Amino acid sequence: MTAPAHEGATAGRAPGSFRAKYEAAVAAHDSLLCVGLDPEPARIPDGLSPAAFLEAIIEATADLVCCYKPNAAFFESRGPAGVEELRALIASIAGMSDAVPVLLDAKRGDVGNTATHYARAVFEQLGAYAVTVSPYLGRDAVEPFLAYEDRHSFVLCRTSNAGAGDFQGLLVAAADVPDGPDAAPARPLYLEVAARAAEWNTRGNVGLVVGATYPEEARAVRDLCPDLLVLMPGVGAQDGALEDAVRMARDAAGGGLLVNASRSVLYASARPDFASSARAEAERLRDAINAARRS
Amino acid sequence: MTAPAHEGATAGRAPGSFRAKYEAAVAAHDSLLCVGLDPEPARIPDGLSPAAFLEAIIEATADLVCCYKPNAAFFESRGPAGVEELRALIASIAGMSDAVPVLLDAKRGDVGNTATHYARAVFEQLGAYAVTVSPYLGRDAVEPFLAYEDRHSFVLCRTSNAGAGDFQGLLVAAADVPDGPDAAPARPLYLEVAARAAEWNTRGNVGLVVGATYPEEARAVRDLCPDLLVLMPGVGAQDGALEDAVRMARDAAGGGLLVNASRSVLYASARPDFASSARAEAERLRDAINAARRS
Repeated sequence: MTAPAHEGATAGRAPGSFRAKYEAAVAAHDSLLCVGLDPEPARIPDGLSPAAFLEAIIEATADLVCCYKPNAAFFESRGPAGVEELRALIASIAGMSDAVPVLLDAKRGDVGNTATHYARAVFEQLGAYAVTVSPYLGRDAVEPFLAYEDRHSFVLCRTSNAGAGDFQGLLVAAADVPDGPDAAPARPLYLEVAARAAEWNTRGNVGLVVGATYPEEARAVRDLCPDLLVLMPGVGAQDGALEDAVRMARDAAGGGLLVNASRSVLYASARPDFASSARAEAERLRDAINAARRS
Repeated sequence: MTAPAHEGATAGRAPGSFRAKYEAAVAAHDSLLCVGLDPEPARIPDGLSPAAFLEAIIEATADLVCCYKPNAAFFESRGPAGVEELRALIASIAGMSDAVPVLLDAKRGDVGNTATHYARAVFEQLGAYAVTVSPYLGRDAVEPFLAYEDRHSFVLCRTSNAGAGDFQGLLVAAADVPDGPDAAPARPLYLEVAARAAEWNTRGNVGLVVGATYPEEARAVRDLCPDLLVLMPGVGAQDGALEDAVRMARDAAGGGLLVNASRSVLYASARPDFASSARAEAERLRDAINAARRS
């Protein structure tokens, strides 16, 4: 499962890796759509357990997506039993006939020895093939995740929330510019994170998280990191934003993206037709993403 | 348990709050020592379960500490059963006759709606009275934790790991300085985080994480944030570093600190005397911290 030795920048693309599974699903389903699995008991149709609800959503959408992204928080908030449900959910997706890899949105980040335990939790105990990680603690906090060469780690870069700019948007002196009166603010922190993440990509298994709400910033990240996979959350009801964001963030081949929608798919309807409504919304999003990436 | 309404900067000090519990334990045990609970199966004496090991450590040290800090990663890495052990551990500490509050080291951070679920997981499901959170996503990602007025949230500021400087040490233009040719790099990112955290402290329940390995930086943080509690990890074998760090980070009253030691206490001995060795090391650390803070 893990081979921490460095085997060059293509290790992360080897058969069986997250990236290989992602690319196979993109091709098989003609889709860059990632569906986020954020079960909110209050929004689930009456009488259904979160597990049964998600099973129905997955059954209705598996041939339309390139990835599923369960969010750890929505399981942890139901206690240890919720964590067990998360484990079972990931195992059940791994066993489907429509092969779709699982990215666990967990945003972990801690010092080296602790990060090793988080990586073990995510990749070995829960069985995810990719994860989101925080950059704030620096390279050694991310490295234990990257040591799992066949898994993919998406570093938070520019998030889609209102407060994202509090720190991510601050201008920083580039690390290779000396201090002193001539030092100039060179670029916003999120681009410094993108640049470092590209350096960390020695095994080909680093990705970035870039919100769809900032298309120009997505373009700046893509210019800096032409080869990295980009997970793009924040796709909502506004197709205008979706189209711009996809066009800015796509790679040279029109791909390299996982465009995530969560609530707009999961809760497309609160009635008994929720699964078919979820499928219709997933299909609409897949087609809108494809139109944008090919335009 | 939670009262999200804003009640002024002293809400976090109210009776029953983390801060009140912390201050009571500081006074009762004459101690700023926090013991980190990071169970590593390979280092636990033969024949003991992680739960039995931690129970013995706690029994041996409870009258010497101001806080216990279990680290979520070391429980999550043993799967859902490990998370259940974490829940039981926190409940067991809460039921002790030596009243010691629990800070869960979880380093969570996500967009608002998701952060609400993480806060529920940590404070309601697991029962912790304080937590560590990541600042990278900005204020709205921390706010759902702060809405629990009686709980304390420690924002990662300057961590103790080797890669901490990758981003935390970058010079940033202060947020209130305009862009343009006259904009000057004003201070390292970790001080910008400290300044913002102080702004977020409207309920008196924000703390900071500042590693003991950088005493001068701890002083800069304390100068900027005279009233915030500081969690200080990274205390190891070097008492010189400990003394400097405590003197730099203490508040005007010689307190306001939780000085954390994990492995040096837990694994003071691998033999059957592990509990008495842990107690001896905890006592030595408590006394060294007290000597430093009163010097």
